[in-house]
Amino acid sequence: MLDDESSLKNFLDNFSGLEGMKILVHGGGKIATQLGSRLGIGHHMVNGRRITDQQTLELVTMVYGGLINKNLVAKLQALSCNALGLCGADANIFPAVKRPVEKIDFGFVGDIAVDLLAVSRLELFLNAGLTMVIAPLTHDGEGNLLNTNADTMAAALAILLAEAYDCELIYCFEKEGVLDAGDAVISKLTMQQFSELVRTGVVCGGMVPKLSNAFEALQAGVPSVKIIQASALKECAGRDVSAGTTMYL
Amino acid sequence: MLDDESSLKNFLDNFSGLEGMKILVHGGGKIATQLGSRLGIGHHMVNGRRITDQQTLELVTMVYGGLINKNLVAKLQALSCNALGLCGADANIFPAVKRPVEKIDFGFVGDIAVDLLAVSRLELFLNAGLTMVIAPLTHDGEGNLLNTNADTMAAALAILLAEAYDCELIYCFEKEGVLDAGDAVISKLTMQQFSELVRTGVVCGGMVPKLSNAFEALQAGVPSVKIIQASALKECAGRDVSAGTTMYL
Repeated sequence: MLDDESSLKNFLDNFSGLEGMKILVHGGGKIATQLGSRLGIGHHMVNGRRITDQQTLELVTMVYGGLINKNLVAKLQALSCNALGLCGADANIFPAVKRPVEKIDFGFVGDIAVDLLAVSRLELFLNAGLTMVIAPLTHDGEGNLLNTNADTMAAALAILLAEAYDCELIYCFEKEGVLDAGDAVISKLTMQQFSELVRTGVVCGGMVPKLSNAFEALQAGVPSVKIIQASALKECAGRDVSAGTTMYL
Repeated sequence: MLDDESSLKNFLDNFSGLEGMKILVHGGGKIATQLGSRLGIGHHMVNGRRITDQQTLELVTMVYGGLINKNLVAKLQALSCNALGLCGADANIFPAVKRPVEKIDFGFVGDIAVDLLAVSRLELFLNAGLTMVIAPLTHDGEGNLLNTNADTMAAALAILLAEAYDCELIYCFEKEGVLDAGDAVISKLTMQQFSELVRTGVVCGGMVPKLSNAFEALQAGVPSVKIIQASALKECAGRDVSAGTTMYL
């Protein structure tokens, strides 16, 4: 969506029109991969996650933190949505630890390390009426940025905020929702069904960590978690609608 | 300085140690030019100002708004300085208008358009104890980012804040200050001397707009304006020191 001007415009129109406090967490992997290939920086994915060496870290810092984030902010400002672009280092909103090397060395990848002050740092901006637009980068507190999966970051944010707010987590992507073996949208998906879909290979690739994040958020107390087509945001926000896929424990 | 790790570390150590509220406005033209040449994007300067076509705008958005800004923020966070990286579109801190085409078409370059709410937008962050780190990008309110000279942005910020705060504007660069024909530092520089130095060619190139910005800030009410060597920030901050060059009307 980020590289399709009319889809992006439609999405931002709908997003800016949502009522209540809202936060946008974005990715940008496709654009990073394209720029990387122009710069001779290859990309290596394992289980839908990018292996991040030093030059890949610089690449995603430019693309996520700069190009995509600042353009989203400028476009939202034009829609009278008072956007504030951030990465996890800004105001220390997302401290993280570099992922320990186990079977795979993911490189400069951060696992979010939530602390007790996390919600109050977010509330400064929420209470000021600012709409945070968050790039999937964190920092280790020692001066280094770290690449972090956007889906995971969105889940972490929703989990944090669900303690104090009536919080809804909506994953927007290109399909109409989670699809069954016959390509029909599954409107209600339980954890057990999810396991079965993974076992039978109906759900695979990047959808597995995305859905795992969604269920982790649900288990951790986020009252509403959905996966929807980005173009349907306007119709799908709110508890009483059934478009897209809604997660159940 | 931005591309020299030890100089940058020294500067950030000194900057983070400054007392009182502080804001850092950064550039990054050299790094943008280097990345541009890797991407086959040329650079064209007129009077020390970059001509900004669409692909140059994307380049500086990546480099200023992403790579440099977010790394500065992460490094300041490691020094217990609660940094918040922003460009002019974030929280609408710097609305601008695309520079009208006169003799030269500068392209996507923004002239800052200050409004009555500008100070209150900055105060939200200042009062929260956040140290703004500002990339030299503005926006036109219609969804477009614009490239803006960092020196001009720093002057505009100082002018705005001088109305409510005891404000000092310090330009940090690679030399010890403004140099006379014999390469000695001019510790006190008046506007009349400046005109004379430009006329005789002692001051030329990018130093002319830099000094013009400095004098504009002074004329507009900023009580203290200096140009110093970046490595001397610790020694030079404060009214009672004479290192570097101090401007006088």
